[in-house]
Amino acid sequence: MRKIYVIGIGAGNPDHLTIQAVKALNRTDVFFLLDKGAEKSDLIRLRHEILQEHITHGRGYRLVEARDPGRDREAGNSGYAAAVDDWRRARAGIYERMIAEDLGEDECGAFLVWGDPALYDSTLGILGEVLRRGSVSFDHEVIPGISSVSALAAGHRTGLNRVGRPVQITTGRRLADGWPDGVDDVVVMLDAHQAFRHHMDEDPLIHWGACLGTDDEMLVSGRLSEVAGRIDELRSAARARKGWIMDTYLLRRD
Amino acid sequence: MRKIYVIGIGAGNPDHLTIQAVKALNRTDVFFLLDKGAEKSDLIRLRHEILQEHITHGRGYRLVEARDPGRDREAGNSGYAAAVDDWRRARAGIYERMIAEDLGEDECGAFLVWGDPALYDSTLGILGEVLRRGSVSFDHEVIPGISSVSALAAGHRTGLNRVGRPVQITTGRRLADGWPDGVDDVVVMLDAHQAFRHHMDEDPLIHWGACLGTDDEMLVSGRLSEVAGRIDELRSAARARKGWIMDTYLLRRD
Repeated sequence: MRKIYVIGIGAGNPDHLTIQAVKALNRTDVFFLLDKGAEKSDLIRLRHEILQEHITHGRGYRLVEARDPGRDREAGNSGYAAAVDDWRRARAGIYERMIAEDLGEDECGAFLVWGDPALYDSTLGILGEVLRRGSVSFDHEVIPGISSVSALAAGHRTGLNRVGRPVQITTGRRLADGWPDGVDDVVVMLDAHQAFRHHMDEDPLIHWGACLGTDDEMLVSGRLSEVAGRIDELRSAARARKGWIMDTYLLRRD
Repeated sequence: MRKIYVIGIGAGNPDHLTIQAVKALNRTDVFFLLDKGAEKSDLIRLRHEILQEHITHGRGYRLVEARDPGRDREAGNSGYAAAVDDWRRARAGIYERMIAEDLGEDECGAFLVWGDPALYDSTLGILGEVLRRGSVSFDHEVIPGISSVSALAAGHRTGLNRVGRPVQITTGRRLADGWPDGVDDVVVMLDAHQAFRHHMDEDPLIHWGACLGTDDEMLVSGRLSEVAGRIDELRSAARARKGWIMDTYLLRRD
């Protein structure tokens, strides 16, 4: 039976890797890497560095790289789920082919996932889709990783929740539609449009971070009204320098 | 300046430790361990094993152990925050004394935290309280860890959120008061009373786990109406065998 690891490799600091992840890397024959285009080449390089540093068995391993089909980023709010759906289907086809053609029946493959495979990552959903199609079979195991949410909280030396209270993890799109009901602590991911700007009136505390855990880590915290401009500057500068930015933040309302 | 690490050591599997955590363990002169009483002795033993396995410098290190003051577990819902507050104050006194008396001015201390220090853990709040009191000063750094929430999702090979949708992390007490507004995916921690029983009518999917990441790991998933009895049996059996149980679950409503 083919075996596939879905390995959380942390939020960008190579030292976020767990011992469990290092062991799984060393049991892997074939690494499947999806290239998201030039703008993410820093991340691809970092992945290669992780393999070089932590694989110590000397047996060698194979890399199978494919181009991510990309999704329609012009789709509005209403088209978002459909665009993601199309993209997942295209991606399932690629995964299916890679597994069938490049992984031997008794071999171990691995997908390396930034952060934790459990949070806003598509790999598990896509592998589920491949299994449902039924043309290839495999066993799979998930290795949890340090998410950008954990790295954000660590960078700010704060908890995500307050004593006995809930925290919600949501997306920039959702936050733009309104502050979530019933919670005062909200973590926002996948926000390309600084949705916190919709909540300047409430003026919550914000703990913001980008490039978490890396040498380029940026952290800003304070009242939103006081630090929103600074966050804007840092985002623009990072985008100009690197061509992309991944940020996450915690909003905390009184 | 004294330095204190707050190190997330993962959800129970010694291999959840990150490389960053291992490096911090090896820079630590003094480990502060709080003993929560006999019922948690398994966890204390596991912590000692982690130190023995991963500290490789050969210089030796010191352990400073104190008895956790405990909190009033008989307090009802209304008294919960006050009981936690009293307990934190008592604990802050203990931390303050340990740091002042047992950590040299140029030494490194560490608190080892199960899971991730960012989720339902009091260590950061208590250290903040110690700093506010002003009698000892120190710099502190947080090393993020694999939370039981990540370990739960990994064990069930599922994501916490659905595509583009939010997930809320909350407590058993809160869930007993009602299903949280605006979310269909809810992770429940700190639930001593199986609060999911209040939601049998909605009959969500449940992904339940206990002793996550350890050899005793228990995982159950299915429709709540179909598996609630099984979860009950497993909890009772584990409690009888070990004297305690720590469980976490994800509820997913259609």
